[in-house]
Amino acid sequence: MLGFLYVGLATAMLIPAIVDVAAKNPDWQAFVFSALLTGLVGMLLSIAVGGSLHEGLDMRQTFILTTMAWVTLPAFGALPFLWLGVSYVDAVFEAVSGFTTTGSTILSGLDSLPPGLLVWRSLMQWVGGIGIVVMAIVLLPFLRIGGMQLFQTESSDRSEKIVGRSVELIRLLGLVYLFLTALCVVGFLLSGMDLFDAVNHGLTTIATGGYSTHDVSFGFFTNSAAGWVAVVFMTIGALPFVLLIQALRGKPLLLWRDPQVRTLLAFLALVSLGLTIYLGVKLDFPLDEALLKATFNVVSVVTTTGFAMGDYSEWGAPVVGLALLLTFVGGCTGSTSGGIKVFRFLVFFGTVRAHLRRMVRPNRVMSEKYGGARLTPELSFSVLAFLVVYLGSVGIITLLLSLFDLDLVTAVSAAATAVGNVGPGLGPIIGPAGNFASLPDGAKWILSAAMLLGRLELFTVLVLLDPDFWSK
Amino acid sequence: MLGFLYVGLATAMLIPAIVDVAAKNPDWQAFVFSALLTGLVGMLLSIAVGGSLHEGLDMRQTFILTTMAWVTLPAFGALPFLWLGVSYVDAVFEAVSGFTTTGSTILSGLDSLPPGLLVWRSLMQWVGGIGIVVMAIVLLPFLRIGGMQLFQTESSDRSEKIVGRSVELIRLLGLVYLFLTALCVVGFLLSGMDLFDAVNHGLTTIATGGYSTHDVSFGFFTNSAAGWVAVVFMTIGALPFVLLIQALRGKPLLLWRDPQVRTLLAFLALVSLGLTIYLGVKLDFPLDEALLKATFNVVSVVTTTGFAMGDYSEWGAPVVGLALLLTFVGGCTGSTSGGIKVFRFLVFFGTVRAHLRRMVRPNRVMSEKYGGARLTPELSFSVLAFLVVYLGSVGIITLLLSLFDLDLVTAVSAAATAVGNVGPGLGPIIGPAGNFASLPDGAKWILSAAMLLGRLELFTVLVLLDPDFWSK
Repeated sequence: MLGFLYVGLATAMLIPAIVDVAAKNPDWQAFVFSALLTGLVGMLLSIAVGGSLHEGLDMRQTFILTTMAWVTLPAFGALPFLWLGVSYVDAVFEAVSGFTTTGSTILSGLDSLPPGLLVWRSLMQWVGGIGIVVMAIVLLPFLRIGGMQLFQTESSDRSEKIVGRSVELIRLLGLVYLFLTALCVVGFLLSGMDLFDAVNHGLTTIATGGYSTHDVSFGFFTNSAAGWVAVVFMTIGALPFVLLIQALRGKPLLLWRDPQVRTLLAFLALVSLGLTIYLGVKLDFPLDEALLKATFNVVSVVTTTGFAMGDYSEWGAPVVGLALLLTFVGGCTGSTSGGIKVFRFLVFFGTVRAHLRRMVRPNRVMSEKYGGARLTPELSFSVLAFLVVYLGSVGIITLLLSLFDLDLVTAVSAAATAVGNVGPGLGPIIGPAGNFASLPDGAKWILSAAMLLGRLELFTVLVLLDPDFWSK
Repeated sequence: MLGFLYVGLATAMLIPAIVDVAAKNPDWQAFVFSALLTGLVGMLLSIAVGGSLHEGLDMRQTFILTTMAWVTLPAFGALPFLWLGVSYVDAVFEAVSGFTTTGSTILSGLDSLPPGLLVWRSLMQWVGGIGIVVMAIVLLPFLRIGGMQLFQTESSDRSEKIVGRSVELIRLLGLVYLFLTALCVVGFLLSGMDLFDAVNHGLTTIATGGYSTHDVSFGFFTNSAAGWVAVVFMTIGALPFVLLIQALRGKPLLLWRDPQVRTLLAFLALVSLGLTIYLGVKLDFPLDEALLKATFNVVSVVTTTGFAMGDYSEWGAPVVGLALLLTFVGGCTGSTSGGIKVFRFLVFFGTVRAHLRRMVRPNRVMSEKYGGARLTPELSFSVLAFLVVYLGSVGIITLLLSLFDLDLVTAVSAAATAVGNVGPGLGPIIGPAGNFASLPDGAKWILSAAMLLGRLELFTVLVLLDPDFWSK
């Protein structure tokens, strides 16, 4: 199975090679050689262990496979960067940030980089995006990660072997993903972007990735239409893809009835409105600029995309505090976005309300609901454990980063942005106007690990660290 | 019941009055008038609703009474400050910080303040300290706050009315508290402190409060013996008082066998050692100074006392990151210290381990233990909910503070130090060398509320906010 993924990745590497050949840039060799190496390893793996796929996977194998895939794909994805002279740690950081759709970058001078490299960055995010959707819909409910059992479908039924049943669903998800990407590219073209920018930003917008072809990110596009197109597709990228499929099949009401979707949209609208008023009143932005910049940056951070429009870390302490908190929120489960995710907040609030009532009246039986389903104690428990482990991880990573002499704002925001797969941090170094290049190597390794940890929803990795997992 | 508390408080106010009379300071009038007012309200209350005490309290009344006591006592405690010309918000802040044994202060020039005022600050913390111990041992297990049902004793049996049975226990706790305070004062006297400083610091050390009579806190005492005495008694103040009673009755082994106590002591030793090495190697402190300053400040923050010895926020990014994390830890349940508290970490780690194993092997039944007791799902659940609400509260308070234009480091550390009842924050404004005087009034109100919220272990307040609580 990993072998097949590598061969697929190798094929994807040929795309930037073609782009560079067309642009008469010698970098195409980097991609071809990387593709050859990746493809070779993939084919050897497939041949060596071929045939075992038909037997399906058990719980433990699924945990191992999922983690292996997310750790090794960025390793191969980093090859072209290495070839082009980027240091080992930077190449890994950039590739991990790509595949996890985080969007933190160690590169600067993006505007003058060769086109193949830019395309490769966008492609990594695009591939990562669909990878996350598939993982969240097919694997995580089966593994019951952080309350994801709430989203068990027939294809994630525990009693069934997982691989066979989900092929059809994966095919559908892929088609919808492709369709939405195309729609986004067209939207950008209509807004006045050139083809190269439209394709690159199309790939990274729907993936809620955040890699741009410009150092100033969306600040580059003076036409406000580009910003609004991005707002729409970042939001779509943060919606549950299973419901997007239903919507495209003619049942858009299912999308609107979903508690995650309603809450996310209401939250985005409310926070954007608040920030718009703040920007208008306190910083004297004209109304249209205030509305666009507020909405764009709020949507970008909450959907964990990480594009920036203007350096919002310069907009005063309230905006900095808000940005830090928004870094934790995340979009819907089953989307391309990271973070804690909306359904966990909903389960958490319901759970705490029921808990408070039980404290006052211990003898009354109360149960909370999510959508139509009753919240089981096991589910509430998974979600609470996820939340504590998530916040605890950010705390511990903050401490580790501060050991490398990062100041507190940089350390906290880097930890939060990495685990949440958002992208930019706060402060002068890694803020929306900065990049991660100047961090010490140790900090980059820690952040690479943090991005993977967040992308794998923490518990997929944590179970592997329990010695009990490896015993018979 | 509140009436009795007010009369007690009025009596306590006469002590600083006597001190000021002895020092020939006209401030004694402030305390006498405040005492008269407080005592009058208390007596009127006692007479008006006298007699109902014998009937005992139900769950709802206990929640209301507990919160009322902690909100109104600081209001009366603030009277002397008001009388002496401190602004309304500052007086409330200082009194709340006193009774909650937080130790954040809005006063500067402590060294030249009249003695009565200094004694009153110390007394508020001392009264608050025993108040917390009684609340944690008698009330919170009964209310099953944040996993405290683990510490239910016969006196907190749910089937019994609560007040009658616990009188004997409260008397014992009071005696032990008095005895330990006396011991601490004697220790400070032997270390070379003068009587005034020894008494004041004795009152605020055992209460893990942190109010000092000097602006530079323990930096004032050049003799290292004073620091070590404080280390010992801050640690004792963070131990479970029920086990301290047992130890003084000749069963010290019970103390040593308690998982909370072992973990706390091991944690303090380990972190202090690490910081000692850091201070020695990176900052070239002499070994004895490194050992004392590291141990003192680690113990001060973890026990949520908040004394400072040197400005540790100047010791580099790793120390700042460490200090922020330590602000969350806290001591043992049933002690005078605040924060998350050690037993919740133990329950959390056990719970997560069991959870990870259930994820991999859903059909195996596993249970974790704490000390001798099996962790029930209800208990694990309470603890997880407490942790999320605790961290979430710090996050929301951070955002609220940033709306008052506080920078991120000040806002985060102020929120954490208030909810944890620690004392000093981080950064140039509210760090160990600063104070809270220059914060905007709105921020002081928020922090006063946060200190009370933390002291009441969050859920005591939260249940009151649920409309369901007030319905029949």
